[in-house]
Amino acid sequence: MKVTVIGLGSMGSVLAAVLLRGGYEVTVWNRTPEKADALVAQGATRADTVASALAASPVAIVCVFDTATAVELLEPVEAGKTVINLTTGSPEDARSLAAWAAERGVAYLDGAIMAVPEAIGTPAAFVIYSGSRQVFDEHRAALDAFGGSHFLGTDAGVAEFHDLGLLSAGYATLGGFLYSVALVETAGVKAGDFLPLATTWLTGMVAFLADIAREIDAGDYSNGASSVAINQVALGTILRDSAAAGVPADMLVPFKDLLDRRADDGHAHSSASGIIEVLRHRIATARVSP
Amino acid sequence: MKVTVIGLGSMGSVLAAVLLRGGYEVTVWNRTPEKADALVAQGATRADTVASALAASPVAIVCVFDTATAVELLEPVEAGKTVINLTTGSPEDARSLAAWAAERGVAYLDGAIMAVPEAIGTPAAFVIYSGSRQVFDEHRAALDAFGGSHFLGTDAGVAEFHDLGLLSAGYATLGGFLYSVALVETAGVKAGDFLPLATTWLTGMVAFLADIAREIDAGDYSNGASSVAINQVALGTILRDSAAAGVPADMLVPFKDLLDRRADDGHAHSSASGIIEVLRHRIATARVSP
Repeated sequence: MKVTVIGLGSMGSVLAAVLLRGGYEVTVWNRTPEKADALVAQGATRADTVASALAASPVAIVCVFDTATAVELLEPVEAGKTVINLTTGSPEDARSLAAWAAERGVAYLDGAIMAVPEAIGTPAAFVIYSGSRQVFDEHRAALDAFGGSHFLGTDAGVAEFHDLGLLSAGYATLGGFLYSVALVETAGVKAGDFLPLATTWLTGMVAFLADIAREIDAGDYSNGASSVAINQVALGTILRDSAAAGVPADMLVPFKDLLDRRADDGHAHSSASGIIEVLRHRIATARVSP
Repeated sequence: MKVTVIGLGSMGSVLAAVLLRGGYEVTVWNRTPEKADALVAQGATRADTVASALAASPVAIVCVFDTATAVELLEPVEAGKTVINLTTGSPEDARSLAAWAAERGVAYLDGAIMAVPEAIGTPAAFVIYSGSRQVFDEHRAALDAFGGSHFLGTDAGVAEFHDLGLLSAGYATLGGFLYSVALVETAGVKAGDFLPLATTWLTGMVAFLADIAREIDAGDYSNGASSVAINQVALGTILRDSAAAGVPADMLVPFKDLLDRRADDGHAHSSASGIIEVLRHRIATARVSP
């Protein structure tokens, strides 16, 4: 029931507080020691050095500024210990830290927190993990205190890939909404008046993604109900009418380009979900390029 | 209880069928008369000419290929009649058709159908209207047979602006999902395995839009919890890590540019929702440009 938390920024502090409330013996360390004051008042033990913090518990949860900082701080970690790294990083960061830990005989689990600090410990929060399945299973109770816990694979980079995918999809939705608000504002419509219809429409769109995912995984684009050609026309109209209103719908131009390319490849009358093939081709090409 | 339906494509045919099932006396007309066969079998009356179709009922629902076709077909419409135009068109199309109808003493309601034909008459469908409030109120029962009916204002172009906004926001969500699937696929993750987390995340994002709308309408960007600077860093990381995986996250580049511009304007530490000000400025500039 002993856990060390390294890094007491706004996120690390909340993680430590949640563990304290869950009855864990929590040792904390932060470069600026005063950041631990509130946690010490709640029952945490402040370690004087990062080495003593790492020595104090079998498992250390690390949540610091970046991967370079995490690597530097983890230098004194002993073989046999467990590291759960919740620092934001790239897939390659996670993979290289996993390799680094393996060389030292340290068990490693990488995680990406899909929540703001205020949401930690509520049903709105979830955290995605990859790396050591054993670490995930063994510490599941502690991890579940943060929010929903999802183990995604033994490749330590997989959680960060999901993080990247979720964040980019989320930003696309957010950006699309901001453009659409700018658009309806040109007709005197307030964002709050547009919101209910936008929420209904986007909720329907999110539900529709299941159909898209099914077609992509099956590689079956034969359902032409929402064809490349139909969506080319619709997106062309949106780009033209948006421009007429003075709103450059430039976020959607790459999407239109994918549709045009897919049509050029001879698939105008198959499902628009087939543009994933264009993206896959570009990725494969990017990988073989110097 | 008499309604005329002009245009029997896949959408117009469904509209006529729904009205027939609702007990209306439906007169139909289509350039290719055979398209009416199934509806005549269900009790519709086939008009020989568009003029006799328009004369047969006090109200005509028009759902044809484009606005030019609608204007051409509506030429014989008499003063005192009502036209409900569900043809896909731009905001300017709707406004010019409303002006055209007003000159002829014809009551005009413009509508945009936010559903595929298969969904008409189900709770998943909704139709947005603008133009004559009186026409909307008078024919509300018939319109409700198609799906949820929303009156958005007396400016006939407002429904088409909403349509444009909803479609562009929906495409941004769809495009973002396709990019994110391409991204996680590079780590061997299937679209269907990514889907549940993506659905949870995007559902949360759609709920978050209410906060964004509130800040935009209040013009109060003082809540720095999700600041321009924080989102600049996050989006910069996404663009970099996506590129490293061979996936050009080009849909998100315009969003990053808006954040950069907002930061340059001195608002790095205020809410990211303030990028609406950059969009508004661009729109205003586009309008005064030649």
